[in-house]
Amino acid sequence: MKAIKIGIIGAGRIGKIHVDNLLRLPQTEVAAVSDLFAGPELAAWAAERGIGTVTKNSQDIIDDPEIDAIFICSSTDTHVPLIKQAAQAGKHIFCEKPVSMSLALTEEALEAVRQAGVMLQVGFNRRFDHNFKRVRECVQNGTIGETHIVKITSRDPNPPHEDYIKVSGGIFMDMMIHDFDMARYLSGSEVEEVYAQGNVLIHPVFAQHGDVDTAIVTLKFKNGALGVIDNSRQAVYGYDQRVEVFGSKGSAAASNDHPNTVEISTADSVMRDKPLHFFLERYNEAYVEETKAFVDCILHDKPVPVDGYDGVQAERIALAAKLSSRLGRPVKLNELQELVRQSAETAAAEPESSASA
Amino acid sequence: MKAIKIGIIGAGRIGKIHVDNLLRLPQTEVAAVSDLFAGPELAAWAAERGIGTVTKNSQDIIDDPEIDAIFICSSTDTHVPLIKQAAQAGKHIFCEKPVSMSLALTEEALEAVRQAGVMLQVGFNRRFDHNFKRVRECVQNGTIGETHIVKITSRDPNPPHEDYIKVSGGIFMDMMIHDFDMARYLSGSEVEEVYAQGNVLIHPVFAQHGDVDTAIVTLKFKNGALGVIDNSRQAVYGYDQRVEVFGSKGSAAASNDHPNTVEISTADSVMRDKPLHFFLERYNEAYVEETKAFVDCILHDKPVPVDGYDGVQAERIALAAKLSSRLGRPVKLNELQELVRQSAETAAAEPESSASA
Amino acid sequence: MKAIKIGIIGAGRIGKIHVDNLLRLPQTEVAAVSDLFAGPELAAWAAERGIGTVTKNSQDIIDDPEIDAIFICSSTDTHVPLIKQAAQAGKHIFCEKPVSMSLALTEEALEAVRQAGVMLQVGFNRRFDHNFKRVRECVQNGTIGETHIVKITSRDPNPPHEDYIKVSGGIFMDMMIHDFDMARYLSGSEVEEVYAQGNVLIHPVFAQHGDVDTAIVTLKFKNGALGVIDNSRQAVYGYDQRVEVFGSKGSAAASNDHPNTVEISTADSVMRDKPLHFFLERYNEAYVEETKAFVDCILHDKPVPVDGYDGVQAERIALAAKLSSRLGRPVKLNELQELVRQSAETAAAEPESSASA
Amino acid sequence: MKAIKIGIIGAGRIGKIHVDNLLRLPQTEVAAVSDLFAGPELAAWAAERGIGTVTKNSQDIIDDPEIDAIFICSSTDTHVPLIKQAAQAGKHIFCEKPVSMSLALTEEALEAVRQAGVMLQVGFNRRFDHNFKRVRECVQNGTIGETHIVKITSRDPNPPHEDYIKVSGGIFMDMMIHDFDMARYLSGSEVEEVYAQGNVLIHPVFAQHGDVDTAIVTLKFKNGALGVIDNSRQAVYGYDQRVEVFGSKGSAAASNDHPNTVEISTADSVMRDKPLHFFLERYNEAYVEETKAFVDCILHDKPVPVDGYDGVQAERIALAAKLSSRLGRPVKLNELQELVRQSAETAAAEPESSASA
Repeated sequence: MKAIKIGIIGAGRIGKIHVDNLLRLPQTEVAAVSDLFAGPELAAWAAERGIGTVTKNSQDIIDDPEIDAIFICSSTDTHVPLIKQAAQAGKHIFCEKPVSMSLALTEEALEAVRQAGVMLQVGFNRRFDHNFKRVRECVQNGTIGETHIVKITSRDPNPPHEDYIKVSGGIFMDMMIHDFDMARYLSGSEVEEVYAQGNVLIHPVFAQHGDVDTAIVTLKFKNGALGVIDNSRQAVYGYDQRVEVFGSKGSAAASNDHPNTVEISTADSVMRDKPLHFFLERYNEAYVEETKAFVDCILHDKPVPVDGYDGVQAERIALAAKLSSRLGRPVKLNELQELVRQSAETAAAEPESSASA
Repeated sequence: MKAIKIGIIGAGRIGKIHVDNLLRLPQTEVAAVSDLFAGPELAAWAAERGIGTVTKNSQDIIDDPEIDAIFICSSTDTHVPLIKQAAQAGKHIFCEKPVSMSLALTEEALEAVRQAGVMLQVGFNRRFDHNFKRVRECVQNGTIGETHIVKITSRDPNPPHEDYIKVSGGIFMDMMIHDFDMARYLSGSEVEEVYAQGNVLIHPVFAQHGDVDTAIVTLKFKNGALGVIDNSRQAVYGYDQRVEVFGSKGSAAASNDHPNTVEISTADSVMRDKPLHFFLERYNEAYVEETKAFVDCILHDKPVPVDGYDGVQAERIALAAKLSSRLGRPVKLNELQELVRQSAETAAAEPESSASA
Repeated sequence: MKAIKIGIIGAGRIGKIHVDNLLRLPQTEVAAVSDLFAGPELAAWAAERGIGTVTKNSQDIIDDPEIDAIFICSSTDTHVPLIKQAAQAGKHIFCEKPVSMSLALTEEALEAVRQAGVMLQVGFNRRFDHNFKRVRECVQNGTIGETHIVKITSRDPNPPHEDYIKVSGGIFMDMMIHDFDMARYLSGSEVEEVYAQGNVLIHPVFAQHGDVDTAIVTLKFKNGALGVIDNSRQAVYGYDQRVEVFGSKGSAAASNDHPNTVEISTADSVMRDKPLHFFLERYNEAYVEETKAFVDCILHDKPVPVDGYDGVQAERIALAAKLSSRLGRPVKLNELQELVRQSAETAAAEPESSASA
Repeated sequence: MKAIKIGIIGAGRIGKIHVDNLLRLPQTEVAAVSDLFAGPELAAWAAERGIGTVTKNSQDIIDDPEIDAIFICSSTDTHVPLIKQAAQAGKHIFCEKPVSMSLALTEEALEAVRQAGVMLQVGFNRRFDHNFKRVRECVQNGTIGETHIVKITSRDPNPPHEDYIKVSGGIFMDMMIHDFDMARYLSGSEVEEVYAQGNVLIHPVFAQHGDVDTAIVTLKFKNGALGVIDNSRQAVYGYDQRVEVFGSKGSAAASNDHPNTVEISTADSVMRDKPLHFFLERYNEAYVEETKAFVDCILHDKPVPVDGYDGVQAERIALAAKLSSRLGRPVKLNELQELVRQSAETAAAEPESSASA
């Protein structure tokens, strides 16, 4: 079988991770990489990995007839135009989350994908985590019965830099979007209503950019289950990533991964090392697995495990959370269209206040 | 030192527990017990324990000049009149939770206690639990820094009988009231706003009585922290009682107590026995400790560790949760007076619908 | 039913524990207590507990026709004569471990018990521990199949005082004897051979008295299983009491009990509190349970759960371990008689060296 | 820097693992692989990995002047001649454990390595395990003080095939040799004396080949510490690999690795998945790490972390254990020479019985 040729758009941290994971897959070849800031360093990095083409222009990759699939790892604002171009060029697409900050734009991108008949996988890597997959299995195989409560804890070890905070889209769209997808993945049900509370408890810089650093969101699912997600931008003890699903026949709860199992008992206490410190360590294998799954779907013409609909649903929930937090009341997903319309009108009527959002 | 003489009003399950715990304290004597249904069985039970007086009439206990303190363990609707009588008779009072289903009545009781200058301890036994005390210590001694998030899980092993459901006051006032007190106890801060979601997922009998069996409540605290409590009336794996406080310097999380530490590894899995099955086993020592604390306060004329204010605050939060669930929106504690007034007016105007609450 | 009247001989720490536990049993009455050093303090202590008789003379208790059962909690050297006297007086006997330091004497005591037809229970309290009972259940109900390996860890939080070390009988007879009984209890098989290694790693005082403070003993059981016990006189992190049985269908492993389940995560590590610090805390309930079991056997004329044979077998294994450690080779239990004879001859021939043992 | 060219002798399971791990290291190139049974399948496997040379003759690799280092992954009986040839050819050597079944032969191999001035690393991969490294750190950085007791549990999920049992060298040389190395690695001290007990409890095939399937070995270390290792050829719940070091200031204990952290609570019990099932899963990263370490030592001319002396010491302990088990008594390592001489004489005198060893 001919290897699948892959082009990478955006060679930042996550783009480079995908390249190294793809290099471990025998059925793929990373043929080209583009980055706005491509220079000698990236060229050297690419050469070490046997990547033939390095370019500043993503169009070079989209236009290359040899390339079968494209990984979009550039900044969020470029996702939608790149998806549309890649789809029109007949490439399969792996796109990092979120597809965009705007439901309307995301839906445009999805429409382009549908019309081109290509595959689009969204980078919700946590679905491929060994712990969360096992919890989902317990839900799906009936071990814990009907789902009643879904609980997700997701706390970062360190807040991002201010430069990132500015453009992140806020905690709900940037960070909790992973958890919104996880809530759908674990429960096997759609979210109908969201109530979001947030506060600035870690650093005032979040307030300066209209964001919060600590948030709790409750969810109502279509199947009647309730859910809750808590996020913090700073857990000093490391990356805290736990989920629990409680149902009519029991519960399945995933605790954190640790670098080792050693328990140290001294005159003071019984200790163990902190959880794995960052997402690259914790989700290392999950990144490999999501890449394998994407390649496997291309090879065998199967539906991707995380598709455009999954991408847009997570964005809908994130938007509802953002609005709930702003309005101080629960928001139903089916109110979104109306609320967005109102919000646009308000923005049009009071353009000077739009910056405060 | 002369032993403190104690009278017990209400010799149901919890009343009997208090008697047996008091018998283990050298400084106390259980002098009398009253119960509406007192009969030969109760007489025999009391005789075995050397309790001199058994009566159907609580007034006999309140009027007994020898008695120093009274434990009110009768049904909730009797609490307020009994507190008032006991206070007027100059007795110290231990009262089971909730003091009443009505804020106005509870405040009347507290006023009577204040005027009589007696002590009133409310039966929030979980404050004396070895796990939760340790979590609170971590908050108070600064180990985990400023509190950002409080999470409480409280799930019963089995739903109560329908007879009880009818008169329980609903999940927020009957069951989650313990967790509302725990939220205040752990955070060291007051709750300002509540948002409650509930559903009937276990048994339709709850719906028939205007109640829910599964609920998630989020909290905003005065100090800026956020909180969440989840309750279920049926966790098939046993009594699930966990708390977690997350702060600027770390987190403290209490998991369940189990009957033993044995891990059994077989060809199928690694297993351990389920958590302690019911509140009598889990909170056995906590009941002893709360009794000791009350006696100790009487002996040394110290303020009780859980006072009437704690009782009424938990009721306020429970009422706010009940209203939030009914109104489908967050409710601030300082809205309560107005909402209760409106509710009363509505009830007056539409008397036929009042049964549905 | 008439209460069982009990006399206590020896009112040291363990004697007092038994009294307090007996007071919680409705079917028993502690009628008398004797102690060589009985004085006003003991009298006051006894008065608080409603114990009628306090005496310096154990004979007063043995001669009292009202007394049904005697707890022998005095020093080890007094056990055998007291057992003989109590048996002849027709009393049921609870005796602390070890029965004696000499197999011949222990067997004399057992013979007296047999002839009198009274009950004798030996104080191997750990058989009543919630964790170890659960492990034994897994062996007995076939959950883990045929036993292949038994592992026991038993480490004290602090070494005893020198005064105690002198008369303790050495680590194997004083401390590991509990583990020898546990090995028999868990495996359901008899020990056939023992190999003991010991060293002085904690404090030279042990060497001065011909003792060791750290020891590992391996065991061969009649059913083919192998075993290992490790002891230390000082685990700075607290009382370390764990067992594991490994078999053809799996394993059952008991870890330590802790004062709470709280996990504290900080920037440094994930911590929990040390295990329960001493035998009084860890085996508190086990002491209650062994007392209940003894009383229950008397009431219902059932065989006691830990009898004289259990007592003498543990002593045999301890003696074999002591000899193995001295001889530097494995010792079979059926060699004991011969080795004891040789040892006696050697001692007779070289009397000046006998102090070194 | 020019890549290190590596030749692999023996392309069985472990040889192939090393190849795949070496391919992930940028500084190495796998240039050639030899295997007695090399055929089209191996050729295809090598071609996929870009390995230029595939041969049946190990001499082709040893004679290749381009090759810098050789991995000896062939059967144990070929190790010593191959090490000698490779050393004479000036190649650095990575050799799987054990170097040989004969101390005399192993020492010959080491002498050849010394004379040639090449590096020899022995495949004790477990030293690179994340858990065991952490325990060793606790010993080395003084966290747990002076070492008093070392405990190692090592149990395989399934017994090997009879074909393997025949030539394995027995449980002590084949399986427990890893634990003997671990004992030296963890304690930082040498073993002086060994006492081994074994039994056939799993399958009679072990007895047929003069082997045991269950064994406990106690150790005395030069620094006074005591140790114990238990092995079983069949733990039905998976690969059981735990260590514990107990010292004057505390203990460090490594428990098993599991495929996930999920705890499933049902009406029956609280369960989690069994430990990682086999050495390839458990020690996956350890194999990568030992390879990295070897390559790093070659690149920077540093002493290897597991050298020939480590290889021969583990063999000495294994031989002592084998003799102890046969003789039924403790064996000191400094008795070995004499015991081997005696054993050789006995074998010479009674040649017909030599097969039974």
